[in-house]
Amino acid sequence: MKNWEKNVRLVTPYTPGEQPKKRDIIKLNTNENPYSPAPGVQKVLKEFETDRLRLYPDPASSELVDAIASEYGVRSSQVFAGVGSDDVLAMAFMTFFNSKKPILFPDITYSFYDVWAEVFRIPYETVPLDEDFQICTKDYQRENGGVIFPNPNAPTGVLMPLEQVEEIIQANQDVVVIVDEAYIDFGGVSALPLIEKYENLLVVQTFSKSRSMAGMRIGYAFGSEKLIAYLNDVKYSFNSYTMDQLTLAMGKASVEDREYFKQTTDKIIRTREWTKEELKKLGFLFEDSKSNFVFVTHPKVSAKQLFENLKKENVYVRYFAKPERISNYLRITIGTDEEMQKLISLLKKYC
Amino acid sequence: MKNWEKNVRLVTPYTPGEQPKKRDIIKLNTNENPYSPAPGVQKVLKEFETDRLRLYPDPASSELVDAIASEYGVRSSQVFAGVGSDDVLAMAFMTFFNSKKPILFPDITYSFYDVWAEVFRIPYETVPLDEDFQICTKDYQRENGGVIFPNPNAPTGVLMPLEQVEEIIQANQDVVVIVDEAYIDFGGVSALPLIEKYENLLVVQTFSKSRSMAGMRIGYAFGSEKLIAYLNDVKYSFNSYTMDQLTLAMGKASVEDREYFKQTTDKIIRTREWTKEELKKLGFLFEDSKSNFVFVTHPKVSAKQLFENLKKENVYVRYFAKPERISNYLRITIGTDEEMQKLISLLKKYC
Repeated sequence: MKNWEKNVRLVTPYTPGEQPKKRDIIKLNTNENPYSPAPGVQKVLKEFETDRLRLYPDPASSELVDAIASEYGVRSSQVFAGVGSDDVLAMAFMTFFNSKKPILFPDITYSFYDVWAEVFRIPYETVPLDEDFQICTKDYQRENGGVIFPNPNAPTGVLMPLEQVEEIIQANQDVVVIVDEAYIDFGGVSALPLIEKYENLLVVQTFSKSRSMAGMRIGYAFGSEKLIAYLNDVKYSFNSYTMDQLTLAMGKASVEDREYFKQTTDKIIRTREWTKEELKKLGFLFEDSKSNFVFVTHPKVSAKQLFENLKKENVYVRYFAKPERISNYLRITIGTDEEMQKLISLLKKYC
Repeated sequence: MKNWEKNVRLVTPYTPGEQPKKRDIIKLNTNENPYSPAPGVQKVLKEFETDRLRLYPDPASSELVDAIASEYGVRSSQVFAGVGSDDVLAMAFMTFFNSKKPILFPDITYSFYDVWAEVFRIPYETVPLDEDFQICTKDYQRENGGVIFPNPNAPTGVLMPLEQVEEIIQANQDVVVIVDEAYIDFGGVSALPLIEKYENLLVVQTFSKSRSMAGMRIGYAFGSEKLIAYLNDVKYSFNSYTMDQLTLAMGKASVEDREYFKQTTDKIIRTREWTKEELKKLGFLFEDSKSNFVFVTHPKVSAKQLFENLKKENVYVRYFAKPERISNYLRITIGTDEEMQKLISLLKKYC
């Protein structure tokens, strides 16, 4: 190792799901939406005046922030926007988790949390889910440097009722609590109204799942004005202009189309329920999912084997070899009806 | 202060130049390019298939990274891309500057360096420029935790010859040296070839100035494979998908149009030289600029007064009240010939 390498921040990065470049596949591995973005998004794209791109975007992302605030009935000063919810969460870890006490999050959860903790050198402890993959609120009632959990949880898809979410927040008013709601729009109840009651609560959402815009990188968060101001200070200390002009305009168009949003999320929920029935018939076991994916195991066929068989047929699902506890599970994104029919017919062959 | 606020990372953020929302102004305050992005950029925009946006982008940004590598004659593994050069620099500070010894940069320079040092808690020392705003290479020949400087420097516009840049790198092989070349394409000689010789050298450039794409947020860096791999590890620990699909495709189109790039940068250089002549006639004093701006002072008229007078006429230039040493200077971006004629005619009235 050379001398200059001694001061390098060494990390083990997060491994995102595979993004195969071939086109003719059924892609159920990264929880993308099978439907196109709202029609208004395309309109922005077609009508955008390219010459404007020589100018910097608005560093405050006001166009998008105002549209989100208006749609969700909060003030713009209660909204933060970033380059996908990963960017929002990274900024939040950096801004709020600076205690010497460990932050807490579930043992089975979004596998980026420990990566952020490590890159920012934040001490952390994981809290085991119970046998049915449920978060036990009591486990979060002890000293800590902050709390974060997804609701619904990933990759389990399990939704915690709002009362339990509030129980955790209530017990943790001396630290920042982050509720990561990437999958909330598929049947969950958001903690958003609680930001009026708890100044230390940050609720994070994304355009990548329910708004079909994973390719554009838009995440956002709701919180008290104070919390959002702190977050913006760190953001402005990192990169003044995180969101490009097109993203801001397209994001605005998406959030303004409430009808299309409802139609497509409802459709995914219906397809999910159908998929669950079919999987049950095939002997799969799973907790109830309120997200745009299901997390399933089969008592007789190994998940790894299924994953590989499906891949051979150009159907991509997500298999996590680790941790041990979920090494026999598959996470399957809900696609179109046709895609799920194809999946089920293949699974019939294997099970 | 509430308990939860005690663990907040408190910072004094960077203040970007004003982005006025009105359209009929002459905007010479944030070093944007007066010409449109390359024609191919518009083509991508018009032909892009919106449905693709429901999918995540390629986390490795390969399309753009490969195009940059090919244009600059390096390997893709020697190129890193980010959300503007601010994002690239922020990631680089986080990745490479983890020594307990202070990093070094000029006292008069890009005012984001000390902001990054503070947000990441990196000790730093500033090194005074000499009386003519020149960097003295000897001052960088002492123990430190890393070195960063822009070439040409900002906001002075002064270019350091490549031999002097190499002198600094040569003297600092035990730390990472970052040469921030945001303005190199307006007449400077890049340190890029030196990455083959110095494994610890990172050369950072941007699409915001010479490629007219400030609104799209694209920055990139060249370095040894080892250096770029370390940088990517930290990037993947922060946000897997920083660059959206449109940005990747439009960036590629821009970098592939060498002819347009040359035409527009040459035009800006010619306009700059004309502007310098006119400013000299009006009694302005300045060091020679090799960037897309000039940094000027007038022995008789205060910079602040000029700044305010110009603003009243809807001509925006940049005035830095601090530090003291440059508090009587204006940084004026080079616009079109017509814009600079308008500026000169106004200055004639005031001087």
